[in-house]
Amino acid sequence: MKNTILILLVISTLLFLTTSIQSQTSEWNEVAPGVWKMAQGTPEKLDLFSAAGIKPSIDGLAKLGPAPFPLSPDKIEVQTANGSTFLRFPLEMEERIFGFGLNFKTVYQRGRILQLHVDHYGGADNGRTHAPVPFYVSDRGYGVFVNSSRYLTVYAGTGVRKDSPDAPEERDRNTDSKWTSQPQSDAVEILVPAPGVEIYVFAGPTILDAVRRFNLYSGGGCLPPRWGLGFTQRVPTLYTSEQVINESRAFEERGFPLDFIGLEPGWQSRSYPCTLEWDSSRFPNPPEFVKAMKDLGIRLNLWTNPYISSKASFYKEILPFTGSHTVWGGVVPDLSIPRAAEILIEQIDKSQVSIGISGYKIDESDGYDRWLWPDVALFPSGNTAEQIRQTYGLFLQKMTTDLFRKKNQRTYGLTRSSNGGGASFPYVIYNDYYSHEDFITALINSGYSGVLWTPEVRSSKTGEEWLRRFQSVCFSPMAMINAWSSGTKPWSFPEVESEVKEYALLRMQLIPYLYSEFAKYHFEGTPPFRGMNLEPGFDLKSIEETLNTDLNEDPYGEAVLKEIKDQYMTGEYLLVAPLFTGQTTREVVLPGGKWFDFYSGRYAGEQEVIKVTPGLGKIPVFVKDGAIVPMMKPVLHSPSAGQKYDLEIRYYGSAPGFYRLYDDDGETFDYEKGIYSWREIKVSADRKGKLTGTISKAGKGKPDNIGQVTWRFMTSK
Amino acid sequence: MKNTILILLVISTLLFLTTSIQSQTSEWNEVAPGVWKMAQGTPEKLDLFSAAGIKPSIDGLAKLGPAPFPLSPDKIEVQTANGSTFLRFPLEMEERIFGFGLNFKTVYQRGRILQLHVDHYGGADNGRTHAPVPFYVSDRGYGVFVNSSRYLTVYAGTGVRKDSPDAPEERDRNTDSKWTSQPQSDAVEILVPAPGVEIYVFAGPTILDAVRRFNLYSGGGCLPPRWGLGFTQRVPTLYTSEQVINESRAFEERGFPLDFIGLEPGWQSRSYPCTLEWDSSRFPNPPEFVKAMKDLGIRLNLWTNPYISSKASFYKEILPFTGSHTVWGGVVPDLSIPRAAEILIEQIDKSQVSIGISGYKIDESDGYDRWLWPDVALFPSGNTAEQIRQTYGLFLQKMTTDLFRKKNQRTYGLTRSSNGGGASFPYVIYNDYYSHEDFITALINSGYSGVLWTPEVRSSKTGEEWLRRFQSVCFSPMAMINAWSSGTKPWSFPEVESEVKEYALLRMQLIPYLYSEFAKYHFEGTPPFRGMNLEPGFDLKSIEETLNTDLNEDPYGEAVLKEIKDQYMTGEYLLVAPLFTGQTTREVVLPGGKWFDFYSGRYAGEQEVIKVTPGLGKIPVFVKDGAIVPMMKPVLHSPSAGQKYDLEIRYYGSAPGFYRLYDDDGETFDYEKGIYSWREIKVSADRKGKLTGTISKAGKGKPDNIGQVTWRFMTSK
Repeated sequence: MKNTILILLVISTLLFLTTSIQSQTSEWNEVAPGVWKMAQGTPEKLDLFSAAGIKPSIDGLAKLGPAPFPLSPDKIEVQTANGSTFLRFPLEMEERIFGFGLNFKTVYQRGRILQLHVDHYGGADNGRTHAPVPFYVSDRGYGVFVNSSRYLTVYAGTGVRKDSPDAPEERDRNTDSKWTSQPQSDAVEILVPAPGVEIYVFAGPTILDAVRRFNLYSGGGCLPPRWGLGFTQRVPTLYTSEQVINESRAFEERGFPLDFIGLEPGWQSRSYPCTLEWDSSRFPNPPEFVKAMKDLGIRLNLWTNPYISSKASFYKEILPFTGSHTVWGGVVPDLSIPRAAEILIEQIDKSQVSIGISGYKIDESDGYDRWLWPDVALFPSGNTAEQIRQTYGLFLQKMTTDLFRKKNQRTYGLTRSSNGGGASFPYVIYNDYYSHEDFITALINSGYSGVLWTPEVRSSKTGEEWLRRFQSVCFSPMAMINAWSSGTKPWSFPEVESEVKEYALLRMQLIPYLYSEFAKYHFEGTPPFRGMNLEPGFDLKSIEETLNTDLNEDPYGEAVLKEIKDQYMTGEYLLVAPLFTGQTTREVVLPGGKWFDFYSGRYAGEQEVIKVTPGLGKIPVFVKDGAIVPMMKPVLHSPSAGQKYDLEIRYYGSAPGFYRLYDDDGETFDYEKGIYSWREIKVSADRKGKLTGTISKAGKGKPDNIGQVTWRFMTSK
Repeated sequence: MKNTILILLVISTLLFLTTSIQSQTSEWNEVAPGVWKMAQGTPEKLDLFSAAGIKPSIDGLAKLGPAPFPLSPDKIEVQTANGSTFLRFPLEMEERIFGFGLNFKTVYQRGRILQLHVDHYGGADNGRTHAPVPFYVSDRGYGVFVNSSRYLTVYAGTGVRKDSPDAPEERDRNTDSKWTSQPQSDAVEILVPAPGVEIYVFAGPTILDAVRRFNLYSGGGCLPPRWGLGFTQRVPTLYTSEQVINESRAFEERGFPLDFIGLEPGWQSRSYPCTLEWDSSRFPNPPEFVKAMKDLGIRLNLWTNPYISSKASFYKEILPFTGSHTVWGGVVPDLSIPRAAEILIEQIDKSQVSIGISGYKIDESDGYDRWLWPDVALFPSGNTAEQIRQTYGLFLQKMTTDLFRKKNQRTYGLTRSSNGGGASFPYVIYNDYYSHEDFITALINSGYSGVLWTPEVRSSKTGEEWLRRFQSVCFSPMAMINAWSSGTKPWSFPEVESEVKEYALLRMQLIPYLYSEFAKYHFEGTPPFRGMNLEPGFDLKSIEETLNTDLNEDPYGEAVLKEIKDQYMTGEYLLVAPLFTGQTTREVVLPGGKWFDFYSGRYAGEQEVIKVTPGLGKIPVFVKDGAIVPMMKPVLHSPSAGQKYDLEIRYYGSAPGFYRLYDDDGETFDYEKGIYSWREIKVSADRKGKLTGTISKAGKGKPDNIGQVTWRFMTSK
């Protein structure tokens, strides 16, 4: 009898563990070239793509061309049981994976366990972050996205199954020196706490292609207005309109560039919770104020958070569409109900956008748990508090983006949270954390997840720190001083004022290059800021050997240094390697191909680790052989629509140079109707080595804002 | 049309948020005196109480007497929606709550958000700990237990509902200096990720009564064997039987007490994963070895973890009852299937317990996530990986406890995890963390959650640290040096060897007192080690004022010092206030009533904060007025069953003294059949102030091991 039960149990166990959970090729539908989707169980209505309202860039995906399904479908296992969905994707030996959102300390995600949960970053890469995007890419050239608005638990190569054909050898810890506390795992496993989910697979062939396909499927990366790439300053909380105007004048007088300025909570009549209305004592005449600023060439960005005060004029209207719990006494709109977003947008439009406000800083949509609504909160849509938490940043970005699109006016702002599918939103993530080193790692990771991140400058203990942070932020999606609390200005540290100005102006000079790189983000999916592992010439193996050779004295160094998380690519050609406070020298990993110093054009190295000692005044930047970097004059405000600007085109090294320069009006959404130009820039040498550059015409009926062109061949023989 | 939809939405919203979620008196069933249960939705089969197999001590609960339901049922709200269950319990203004398991840094839990999750403690009180017990008590005199084996998210007074009658006033952060980032909440809210759950409420009237009722309902606290309260040493991993015998002799020769010794992984033929079989090279003749140790008066405790090697003799037998994933290559028995536990117990009995092994150290049943099975693992019982994680420590304790009970032989061991309902298991929690300060806070918190904790001594940088840690561990449930890795001995720091010996022997002297206090844990539910907030004379308000007065120079000190987390009660009478490395002086909060120095009997203070400078050789211990502390001689091994021991009864202060001394055979479960004695000790003064002590007889047919009685009246006039 006992044996019979045992046998039955064995059989049912085996059935339970293996019943039809491997995916079939037929279950994967190719929804766009190189993009496959599978629906497991009963997917929930509110998912990330639906919250973001993605419109895949089929054109862009088509241009990337067809590709085979990049994994063996039978190695992907999916199962729904007990109300949860279990996903398993294969990992090969030594396969590396990247992504899972905006991590701050780690680039390689294999071996990590994360619970993806929108939150303010708390100092540990555990899945709680501003954009915990359930997307990863592999160096084997594919990407996986789990389209769920739930807190997903991710085992990124940690679990080992007893029935795995690749199960690691069992070892005796008592006597075997090769015993390890974390035996090799052959899978990424993900727990979706819902009875179903949509999964997407993105083809390569390269890791960058997989990222591109993900971004294009999300609608393509955002294309900011040209002014968005200029410099921005955020003023102290209780500044008045007069103080803001004075601050703007001070920038002009001191010769510091400024394109937009950010007002903090004090512009509102009440904040935390918010009224979304002007404070009449500090801002007695908003339309006049906005106009005065416009006359100075400066746009305005407004801070807000989404928690609504009972004193707001639209409070009674929004109340039925709010959740059970309050945040700082404010009600929480259920933005998964379209009418809730409409009510907010009506107020924002009427009071602010219609008088010329250019964008928003949307605060506190992320966390911490102790501030936001609890997971036990109920929302009138019936969506869970967890789902609302995971998608709130997407909804906030979408509703404001849609408003500006309706006005055919681009915006560029700040958000504290985002998620998968948000690549097309013109928002940059920021936070309250302030490690310069980790800010750079976040910048690298943003490029794997379809989000943008600014390593903002806030305050500093020393002029050195101020300058080092400032140099970094000038090579990021948003060149910003966030002085709402500190009141610092670019010139607050006189000992480095001229160096700070030099980089603020260099940022302005780089706008043609940066703008083109953002256009590639939009049209081709290529992230404008990205990690070295996405760089085609980055041959990790050989560099690791180099690093190991250098590290004989530190046997533990190897594991750490395999992650290159302190240097990154700005667009196609610029390798940026920031220094941090206290450093006078650092190592830079140069990928394959020759590299040149950005400032001098001198040869720097090739597929090697070099040591640089740039001095405090410089952030090391290296340029690829054959690189073309189109720059403009160091103006204080970015060119407005139709305004001509001259180009200085720099060329480095000796390889044939090629660049595609993007142009449009820089302000409207007309580019979505094809009103833009790609101009080809080429540099080549004749038989005697004399260099010549050419730039193609904009094309008939295409925007053409380029005035004079000057050529600078940076590398002398 | 739009308006109609709006109205419908408003109505459905209101219905959704208020539909019959308040509990009714009728739904609460009094399952024992002062204990109520309610079943919400469809509770899951595997819960904490069922895993622990609790047998409520109805006798003990009856003695505590009847009590009214301690809350307004209509202020408790419960609801099941979307597959989850939402619980809400009221909180009054300034109400304090304690518990939620083995926290290491905080005593007051109000204002905290926790996800209760069995794990190795990771340095932050976030719910991930060795015993994340879903039980809290309030200083308003009641307790609440959520009988769920899920990861519960607890908002312990953080969420604010918009419809709360006590909702805090909305404030404008721009201008109102009273604005706070965490407005007052009026509820504890708990998310149970399951479609139902059992909830229990425990009456007071005091906070300690609520704790007692919880412990008694769990079966009463454990009563260790008398030898369990003696000293224990754990030897290095690869020690042989000969080395263990030599180590035991060294203790004897040097005059250090030793009751049991712990063997680490090397006793097994393979470990991590384990065979649960002796290693024949290091332990060629286990029965002989166990007997040799017994002859030395030393019992043996064996390390193990529950992950089974493919080389184990019973591997094939256990295999069908294991989960989908391995831990260090070992299979994971599904202990919610009785047969799985039986197979393990058969091996343990045959190979170890039957030859005289006295207990176990059950390792790695807690975490970290990167080591244990993932939440995506599947188990043959159909219970989820989450449920197995939350209950694994309970199952492991239960199966071994049951084995020893079957042999009518008490055990006392170590476990790395436990949970609600485990109070009766004779296991002490330990971990790999090593902050002396936090170890003391954990000792305090253990008393709120029905678990035991040892602030074990492992290694130390200095003699000072060694002695300070040693002093603390002697006033804890298990006086242990855990030297598996360090190889330290009590005499490893010669400069403090005599002081260490003094405390090791003091521990032995205190056994009659400690044993009686554990008997009160078992029969009356009173935790033997507990925080000051459970002390009747501890008038927090007045002490807070005192503390504030002392803290004028540190305006932020107040919030921290309100938590008294560095002193605790050992049993009824001893207040222990450890010093930490680097300290020469510290403050001690004395509750109401007179207190006396344990060592000298001198008056120390009353309802005040005193400063003490005890010197390195002393750990401050204070004794209540009228305290009676029965002690025995400083022997090296605790008395065995039937062995007589002399008593020295100490008396402090001048109030009438009363103590109930417990006695039984100290080794078997015969006390469960009533074979034990409570003897009354009294001290009183005659008209001239001359003190006289009396001790009652054991009673006919009751155990009587007490030899000569000496009286020491410690406080001179």
